[in-house]
Amino acid sequence: MYAFPSHTAASIPTSDETPTSDLPPLLVLRPLSDAWLSALNAKFTLVSPSSPLSASVHAALISGAYNRVDPALLDQYPSLRCLVNTGAGVNHINLEECKRRGVQVANVGETHSKNVADYAVGLLLDVMRRITMSDRYVRNGLWVTRDNYPLGSKLFVQIFQLGGKRVGIVGLGSIGSAIAKRLEAFGCKISYLSRKPKPTVSYRYIPNICDLAAESDILVVSCALTKETHHIVNKQVLQALGKEGIIINIGRGANIDEPELVRCLIQGEIKGAGLDVFEHEPNIPKELIELENVVLTPHQSVFTPEAMAEVIQICIANFEAFFAGKPVITPVVAD
Amino acid sequence: MYAFPSHTAASIPTSDETPTSDLPPLLVLRPLSDAWLSALNAKFTLVSPSSPLSASVHAALISGAYNRVDPALLDQYPSLRCLVNTGAGVNHINLEECKRRGVQVANVGETHSKNVADYAVGLLLDVMRRITMSDRYVRNGLWVTRDNYPLGSKLFVQIFQLGGKRVGIVGLGSIGSAIAKRLEAFGCKISYLSRKPKPTVSYRYIPNICDLAAESDILVVSCALTKETHHIVNKQVLQALGKEGIIINIGRGANIDEPELVRCLIQGEIKGAGLDVFEHEPNIPKELIELENVVLTPHQSVFTPEAMAEVIQICIANFEAFFAGKPVITPVVAD
Repeated sequence: MYAFPSHTAASIPTSDETPTSDLPPLLVLRPLSDAWLSALNAKFTLVSPSSPLSASVHAALISGAYNRVDPALLDQYPSLRCLVNTGAGVNHINLEECKRRGVQVANVGETHSKNVADYAVGLLLDVMRRITMSDRYVRNGLWVTRDNYPLGSKLFVQIFQLGGKRVGIVGLGSIGSAIAKRLEAFGCKISYLSRKPKPTVSYRYIPNICDLAAESDILVVSCALTKETHHIVNKQVLQALGKEGIIINIGRGANIDEPELVRCLIQGEIKGAGLDVFEHEPNIPKELIELENVVLTPHQSVFTPEAMAEVIQICIANFEAFFAGKPVITPVVAD
Repeated sequence: MYAFPSHTAASIPTSDETPTSDLPPLLVLRPLSDAWLSALNAKFTLVSPSSPLSASVHAALISGAYNRVDPALLDQYPSLRCLVNTGAGVNHINLEECKRRGVQVANVGETHSKNVADYAVGLLLDVMRRITMSDRYVRNGLWVTRDNYPLGSKLFVQIFQLGGKRVGIVGLGSIGSAIAKRLEAFGCKISYLSRKPKPTVSYRYIPNICDLAAESDILVVSCALTKETHHIVNKQVLQALGKEGIIINIGRGANIDEPELVRCLIQGEIKGAGLDVFEHEPNIPKELIELENVVLTPHQSVFTPEAMAEVIQICIANFEAFFAGKPVITPVVAD
């Protein structure tokens, strides 16, 4: 899911009039920052959902943070033939229904892969080396007041070395591959699960999630959310990962059975977790707030200003292809 | 500086008696965890500083967190001919004085390099992508209560992408080299400063610290603390790094003019910092506690349980070489 700072979001003028410009009309179903507005306004006539024109528009900009693309939405905008999603994940889009109605769907391709991969490694290093926890310790004044300077706290017994660890990557798409490349530089041993082995990589392929977890010190969830991957990390998988195991999730919250994960973290059945996504965002299980063995961030792994600029350009390029009668340039390929 | 959890530290028995064992006597000038105690006891007769025997012992275990090796200390133990330091940095040891007195000095070689390098990358990703700050945001309940879900806070405008950034490494020893290797996997462009260009690397050599800062988005301090590197990052360097610059310090606090760094962070003259070391540990400037653009940790970049085990073995191997009449295996080479 991807979005931009809505403190800068402006409204699209609602108009009952026929557009006076020759620019093709574009339905906008998510808030827009100033950067988005000025870039889109230069190329399209923006149409808001409340405009009577919205029912006749052929293309729309959407986001998983704000939109659920189901038959009801598609009925509301029956002329739509092209949807461009500003994020990587498309679990909010009923792709079969779109296909049936002849609606092309695009996302932003691999724009986000590098940033999400960087973020996954950042979360992992943070959890392994207790960076966020230690910052809290220092800010709370405990470094000075505890007599066991410099490294006395019991907190620190949970620190782990990353080098040499076995990392199991759940989903070796462009994000998972970028994570693997980075972790190789830290001396990690990579295995992965995907629908099929990837002939271009030398990492070990383990086709069963429980086997992957059992043979990993660290499990990184970087797969799309589909029917098959819903709760792919369940109680059995967490047990297979075991007491010394670390889990990182930059996929989707519902890839993990969240109540079970929370129970394992509380009871020490797994060692720790770095979570950027949750099942019921922005709500997170309140028990997590009290835990020292987790790092919790608000679904921001894609977010950098540099990516924002790139995302705007790739969305515009998709719409331009569509309006020129060509296929979108970064289509979402359904399973 | 390196130490182990002193909540597990035990005292060495103080004895007025001549050792009954044939094991060579070893003076211990730092607290020891149980793991240290049992490993050392198997090989040496441990002697505490308060024992009358201490004046005649030839070898000692030291740590920068607890010991300052100056003429006064060397006068107190006139028989010492071998010092083994449990950390990487040796700025607490007067190496010239040791050399003059014929005292061999060893540290733990490159044992810590990988862990320190991992930690530096972790701090950098944390600062660039605001991981610790975001964890605080989530734990404070702000993700739910702010109406600009999912990424609305002004906090997030300071996030940056790591890929493509220019990183200047101050000190390309084994730690700096390991940092460079890791950051290459993230697509960073590496330059470095050292006394001399390193013929084995392809990174750009910039012999002047101000030039290095001016041509870097990120400055990573990974040099030893010497007379030459004391406050090597001063006001001019920080100005050269500039408003969008990030600084990471896993070297020594006094490598940076700390009051000047604090002023720059407060006034926005540099963007942010990840600091594991400080000039007057465990005290840190109180102004830092209030800042959102810093990550503060308690001098723990070397610390992992895996490294602890390795450090014990390498220290023992140094003492065994010394007692066998050979040179220590990981000598500290003075400038």
